[in-house]
Amino acid sequence: MGRWEPGARGRLIRSALELYAERGFEQTTAGEIAQRAGVTERTFFRYFSDKREVLFDRSSDLQTLVVDAIEAAPPAMRPIDTVGTAMEGLAPFFSGDREFARHRAAVIGANPSLQERELLKFSTLASAIADAFRRRGVGDPAAGLAAETGVTIFKIAYESWIRGEATSDFAECIREVLDQLRALTAGA
Amino acid sequence: MGRWEPGARGRLIRSALELYAERGFEQTTAGEIAQRAGVTERTFFRYFSDKREVLFDRSSDLQTLVVDAIEAAPPAMRPIDTVGTAMEGLAPFFSGDREFARHRAAVIGANPSLQERELLKFSTLASAIADAFRRRGVGDPAAGLAAETGVTIFKIAYESWIRGEATSDFAECIREVLDQLRALTAGA
Repeated sequence: MGRWEPGARGRLIRSALELYAERGFEQTTAGEIAQRAGVTERTFFRYFSDKREVLFDRSSDLQTLVVDAIEAAPPAMRPIDTVGTAMEGLAPFFSGDREFARHRAAVIGANPSLQERELLKFSTLASAIADAFRRRGVGDPAAGLAAETGVTIFKIAYESWIRGEATSDFAECIREVLDQLRALTAGA
Repeated sequence: MGRWEPGARGRLIRSALELYAERGFEQTTAGEIAQRAGVTERTFFRYFSDKREVLFDRSSDLQTLVVDAIEAAPPAMRPIDTVGTAMEGLAPFFSGDREFARHRAAVIGANPSLQERELLKFSTLASAIADAFRRRGVGDPAAGLAAETGVTIFKIAYESWIRGEATSDFAECIREVLDQLRALTAGA
């Protein structure tokens, strides 16, 4: 399911992104987004709890995918490989949406309130990953460390994928960042 | 300078923490904090921009210490050792304030709006660290990765220091988490 999906939901997301880029996030109302999408304000609120959520509508799907992948990993797989594989598995989730992701990142980067929301989503993702590791028998602080490290890998790889300088393959971005992390933390 | 510092500023911080714990953060006003501290509301706002900032008054000092330590590190020092040393150097900054830190963490943990502010502070710290590494000639994404990893080490070590299960020495907590990170990312 791409961000350029048809139907009211897809139109609302695209309209919101356009308006946030044109007028700024603070200056845009849910009513205006609905109007541009050709639906009522009530329809807007049937899909999204507020105008920030339009940009984060897929974060719970993403979290479910990552947690499921961690739970499905072979029991003997090391935490860093488990979280790396789970992140690589997100490639189809983002596939084809790089242009959308780029616009979305620009809008979020321009607004502190959207940045806060994004940070909260990352923090929630890290907690869910840590819990998934604890259920696999990983203790603390290893579970928290693997989770925070996994989210860091995701964040840096996602930024690199959006820029698309080296590669536009999301899974390859994840593998590269994981390699760089290993180089960073390796002994002298 | 401990959090139990004398004077209006220290009294305001202690009063805020007490009231947030007793009534909840949302239910407490700046005026009530000022009243308990025995100062006027105007005095409160001379020290703090809002009631959230009372709990984050030292974050810019902390950031300055970390950035200065990175800038002062030998040019040949590896990024992971540089950021680890900078974090260890925070030990005197926290020394003696573990009880305060524990209460503060409980208050933040109970309020989403305070959690958002804390996440934003961590994100600002990571950006400042990444910039410090870029000034040392570290490229991207290595600079961002070292910065995010440094903040992760700080967060996990700080939690471990607050719990005080293994050790109450902050620098030792940093070294332990760095060792655990190395074990996490080492090849199979």
